[in-house]
Amino acid sequence: MPLNKKDLLEIQELSSDDIKLIIDTAVSFKEVTGRDIKKVPTLRGKTVVNLFYEPSTRTRTSFELAAKRMSADVINIAVSTSSVVKGETLLDTARNIEAMRSDIIVIRHSAAGAPYILAKGLKSSVINAGDGCHEHPTQALLDMFTIREKKGRLDGLTVAIVGDITHSRVARSNIYGLTKMGAKVKVIGPATLIPLEVERLGVDVHYNLNEGIKDADVVIMLRVQLERQGKTYFPDIREYSMQYCLTKERLRFAKEDAIVMHPGPVNWGVEISPELSEDKSTVILEQVTNGVAVRMAVMYLLSGEKATAS
Amino acid sequence: MPLNKKDLLEIQELSSDDIKLIIDTAVSFKEVTGRDIKKVPTLRGKTVVNLFYEPSTRTRTSFELAAKRMSADVINIAVSTSSVVKGETLLDTARNIEAMRSDIIVIRHSAAGAPYILAKGLKSSVINAGDGCHEHPTQALLDMFTIREKKGRLDGLTVAIVGDITHSRVARSNIYGLTKMGAKVKVIGPATLIPLEVERLGVDVHYNLNEGIKDADVVIMLRVQLERQGKTYFPDIREYSMQYCLTKERLRFAKEDAIVMHPGPVNWGVEISPELSEDKSTVILEQVTNGVAVRMAVMYLLSGEKATAS
Amino acid sequence: MPLNKKDLLEIQELSSDDIKLIIDTAVSFKEVTGRDIKKVPTLRGKTVVNLFYEPSTRTRTSFELAAKRMSADVINIAVSTSSVVKGETLLDTARNIEAMRSDIIVIRHSAAGAPYILAKGLKSSVINAGDGCHEHPTQALLDMFTIREKKGRLDGLTVAIVGDITHSRVARSNIYGLTKMGAKVKVIGPATLIPLEVERLGVDVHYNLNEGIKDADVVIMLRVQLERQGKTYFPDIREYSMQYCLTKERLRFAKEDAIVMHPGPVNWGVEISPELSEDKSTVILEQVTNGVAVRMAVMYLLSGEKATAS
Repeated sequence: MPLNKKDLLEIQELSSDDIKLIIDTAVSFKEVTGRDIKKVPTLRGKTVVNLFYEPSTRTRTSFELAAKRMSADVINIAVSTSSVVKGETLLDTARNIEAMRSDIIVIRHSAAGAPYILAKGLKSSVINAGDGCHEHPTQALLDMFTIREKKGRLDGLTVAIVGDITHSRVARSNIYGLTKMGAKVKVIGPATLIPLEVERLGVDVHYNLNEGIKDADVVIMLRVQLERQGKTYFPDIREYSMQYCLTKERLRFAKEDAIVMHPGPVNWGVEISPELSEDKSTVILEQVTNGVAVRMAVMYLLSGEKATAS
Repeated sequence: MPLNKKDLLEIQELSSDDIKLIIDTAVSFKEVTGRDIKKVPTLRGKTVVNLFYEPSTRTRTSFELAAKRMSADVINIAVSTSSVVKGETLLDTARNIEAMRSDIIVIRHSAAGAPYILAKGLKSSVINAGDGCHEHPTQALLDMFTIREKKGRLDGLTVAIVGDITHSRVARSNIYGLTKMGAKVKVIGPATLIPLEVERLGVDVHYNLNEGIKDADVVIMLRVQLERQGKTYFPDIREYSMQYCLTKERLRFAKEDAIVMHPGPVNWGVEISPELSEDKSTVILEQVTNGVAVRMAVMYLLSGEKATAS
Repeated sequence: MPLNKKDLLEIQELSSDDIKLIIDTAVSFKEVTGRDIKKVPTLRGKTVVNLFYEPSTRTRTSFELAAKRMSADVINIAVSTSSVVKGETLLDTARNIEAMRSDIIVIRHSAAGAPYILAKGLKSSVINAGDGCHEHPTQALLDMFTIREKKGRLDGLTVAIVGDITHSRVARSNIYGLTKMGAKVKVIGPATLIPLEVERLGVDVHYNLNEGIKDADVVIMLRVQLERQGKTYFPDIREYSMQYCLTKERLRFAKEDAIVMHPGPVNWGVEISPELSEDKSTVILEQVTNGVAVRMAVMYLLSGEKATAS
């Protein structure tokens, strides 16, 4: 069963079958990255371009490794260090990249919707690696892969997402994906950081951490964007962490075998207490490992039959 | 017939046979980049170093892809982000790179003549990727390749080059190349941006766009360097574009089947009217595609018999 | 005889047998880099990450080429241009890299000891590419390789190291290595730049260049860190060079066949007179060539049997 898509722009447009296919494929690729020789010829002779308008070591590196381990040629374009900045439009830049015969363009951009502009205008496959406050689909896919790996299923689970829900593309993609897969999602945070009418997405809202994570199988802690200066949605980082930092004690309110996730990088002591960093409940590094496998799966599936043939 | 050169420094030193050889070779490599698996072993085990003293996404990416598709190992060195800046001379830097056994060094530098210093001091092949206001030979080669592809020949054509002729290495390289290949070249721009005695290079000079492009088979629009602050050669960008922006209406003064070219990135509305961006006369993206093929051809030919043997 | 080490953190912990093994292995890899096709499959399917917290074109490029010529997948992470800077700890960053299944992490850091933190916390092999004022083991190994290549041995030689001994990780690593290998080491510089009680490391101290290099087989000139502003250990760069710049005339005080080395980049006229740049005594570029071979040898030996098998 193929994915039958040119692009991966959002979780919202995927069916539960699509999500299942991507996770199943990622399981195979995880086996590849566990081998002594982590290299397959799947994308040999293909060109993958990482077009990053926001800096990101982790996500760029994860896509770069995923592509290289499938033998693709990879080009990194970081916009702040390049001439793309000289008044050139996004689509112009992308068309020029495609004219060099790119096969896959991975884009991260601070503007929601930027990847759609590329997808519409280009024949290359476009993968959204995070667009503004909109979506970050591969993050949600690796999160769902990790949950399924640890819990054996997604259907029927209770997943709590904690933090700045309003500005989090990770939260948004996970809400779409997890509800599609039959999980119950609860969002938890200060009222100023919960979007109005978020219940319409099928989630419960809590403002108190202990109450919110009750009976949760999975707790996803979101990153507090300490570096976004000039924007203050909560009065004080210390006050935030007093109420919402996940500690061992607070985690007892969740199910006994609950797992703790975070898209990284963690501000230890702000979102999660350092005492949990080595705890068996914490699966943050496994998310990172699974991220490479999920990105390999997505690139493979978008490449379709051509990749399969090689 | 081999190229019999160690370096590609300028169009001026090439014979018309050399130019023909490079374009003919690029035709073959363009076929390679059109394949499903865009990879040949031509430069396997060779080391190509992109040494860029001026930022450039497009040109660097084009050379990087050209080298990777021929299976070379590629190293990017951007000088602003590196320690090369610490008072080290250009030749010292390059000798150190060569000591790591580089085969080809691609250099872009703001100083005219910089590539010659490397070529004289090094055994590696040196490719000029733009030196100050002097030459940008691979740009002219990809332009001539594109013209020949569209028009079937270069000999006997009329090519108009419009804009800041004085500071354009693209203009200079194209003037040398096109006149060698038997084309008639006309340069068009405000008097302040046309070099004194440019007629000595065998070109006609026009200050009026409509008059200048009369009977042109090809119109090459040069980029206005909006980002070079502190240097003002024309009073006002709006006034410039009123006189020299190519519109559909103005293009009617050229031949009916004239093609429009630009080295990119275009300032739409300044050099070329947006209405032309999707017009069939505009071949800017094909220039980009041909750029990779031309750079593959140049690297292949400079590598000589050794590459042929592999 | 295997190296039986996971990491290369310092010369101090190596035995003379270890050093001999690395140099012997580098001799083989130097032969590889001299071939027409400079590529072996030794590290195919392995992932090497260059994690540079200090900018360095030369060292990063040398490691990158070494890894690529052994067919590894290479990822470059320069911290100033990345999100690693956002309050994430070193070990967190490295654990995330390892979670992507890195095999070798090459780290340069301004803090002495940083590579040890990684080595203790990670399963990946860690290579110290320079940590603060502590050690730079691959530099000392390439220096010893170059000396042995030129002089046929290390044992019994007299090596003079000239400059800022106090802040030089190159000096420290060379002192440890050369004394282990049976060479006599003399350090020479202004009193303010010679560490107290450096004699305990088994070296002689001199403040006068001509006296210090007497009978030296090898003279290693250290780089003056012109770019470290705000720290002044000598009154004036001109006064420094008047006393310590190596000239042809001063070199006559060393043995007739003495060789001159420098870790690069040289400030010509400050540490070494330009008249020596083309002199046959100067082997600086051969150090650079040998650097790639030494780094290939280190990566190969740390990879152990797995690499041997492939």
